[in-house]
Amino acid sequence: MARGLCQIMGREISKGNFNNNIRQQMTPRGTIQFPWSSINSVRTMAVLPWPFSFQPRDFSLPNSSWGSDMRRLYEHYNSQCEVETDDGEKKWGVWRRLPSYNRSLKYATGGVYLSKIIQSKARLFTRNIREQGAAFEYVVFVNKQEQKCVCVFQAGHLLEGPPGHVHGGAIATMIDTVTGTHATYLSGPVMTANLNINYRSPIPLGSTVLLTCSLDKKEGRKTFVSCQVTNTDSSKLHTEATGLFLSITMGHLLGG
Amino acid sequence: MARGLCQIMGREISKGNFNNNIRQQMTPRGTIQFPWSSINSVRTMAVLPWPFSFQPRDFSLPNSSWGSDMRRLYEHYNSQCEVETDDGEKKWGVWRRLPSYNRSLKYATGGVYLSKIIQSKARLFTRNIREQGAAFEYVVFVNKQEQKCVCVFQAGHLLEGPPGHVHGGAIATMIDTVTGTHATYLSGPVMTANLNINYRSPIPLGSTVLLTCSLDKKEGRKTFVSCQVTNTDSSKLHTEATGLFLSITMGHLLGG
Repeated sequence: MARGLCQIMGREISKGNFNNNIRQQMTPRGTIQFPWSSINSVRTMAVLPWPFSFQPRDFSLPNSSWGSDMRRLYEHYNSQCEVETDDGEKKWGVWRRLPSYNRSLKYATGGVYLSKIIQSKARLFTRNIREQGAAFEYVVFVNKQEQKCVCVFQAGHLLEGPPGHVHGGAIATMIDTVTGTHATYLSGPVMTANLNINYRSPIPLGSTVLLTCSLDKKEGRKTFVSCQVTNTDSSKLHTEATGLFLSITMGHLLGG
Repeated sequence: MARGLCQIMGREISKGNFNNNIRQQMTPRGTIQFPWSSINSVRTMAVLPWPFSFQPRDFSLPNSSWGSDMRRLYEHYNSQCEVETDDGEKKWGVWRRLPSYNRSLKYATGGVYLSKIIQSKARLFTRNIREQGAAFEYVVFVNKQEQKCVCVFQAGHLLEGPPGHVHGGAIATMIDTVTGTHATYLSGPVMTANLNINYRSPIPLGSTVLLTCSLDKKEGRKTFVSCQVTNTDSSKLHTEATGLFLSITMGHLLGG
């Protein structure tokens, strides 16, 4: 692979060439999240066909396909993203919602250069279906203070594996997305090196689950994140996983 | 989860209730493949809207989106699925192509019973997009004699993770699909218990790769399968993984 995408200070950065040694060891993050615009998160952005739209659709905002569990959990975390002080002013809370788009390139740093490289039809895997509620409906919240991250995920009918239940690959996809987002948020630009997933109990199609990620440790370039997938009240464990992510330097990202 | 889907002698079987202990330990296979009809594989089946179609669309047959690598590798393995004897008769070769559908229920054993349980809109995760070439184009061949399995996989533009490259979750999805198919083919009905994936080198979007699976060992109910994802001439390793699958008895499958 000749390029990588990562978050640095909430911005996606792509590069021309990876260090060959690093290329042999890992795959860059597939997560596309923009933490810098996470306040005022309940306000829906304008959605017009590009190039008329200056703001892309944020897929992590509520839509009519969201069930009661999804909405309730969204509100629970979203209400803690912004707090009011005694003076009536608003300030950041302990949580931040991360917006989520289906393309990065039109809005990333150096967009013109990047758009030459990527086919115009490409879409982020987890946001590639237009029909609301049909596939991955999810929203990610991070809590830097507690080094914790949660994702509320409603699994649509197009994610079927065993009849009526979510495909193991779709679960792995969400785990990769959320652990990678968390590692990036804590350590800056990273690439996934390993995912180890234990499937405990299948997830019924259409249900809402919680992915809860926490930092296990950092060792040099390595960030270890663990993740549990549970039902909405955390009483039932569906899946648990660990992820190992390797930090990449600015040099790697910018063509070094 | 209340039901499971597995292959037994090439047929998919679903059940009403899993043994609770087993339910806590694993997730059932999401793989939907039908090995019994793999001969005459290059003949395209009729594709009419259900209920007018008596044969479902087999997604693993060549279509116009397939690139030259995908077609070449398909022909390479498919030509070894059927051999001609000295008498001019045709018989099975060492490989078998496994057909692949986007729903199991209309065509599975006990279909009427199953279809009541599952929402009519549900689709297999890996076959949920109609546009040919946009997402997962793949075909699986198994070689029972060598206890080996290969999958030729062309990754479409809707599987993007890092710009221009395949999402780690999409790679995990194919690994889950192919290792699970292999374990099922060798051991009968199984459920995925663990996937351990090492990402070595990212896969460019649109490229064709080979997934090669082999049986590591069997221990009681456990089947251990390993998988390598390489470029088409196997000179470059993209990803490697191991999968642990647990056998389920007929009793478990049939509601025991």
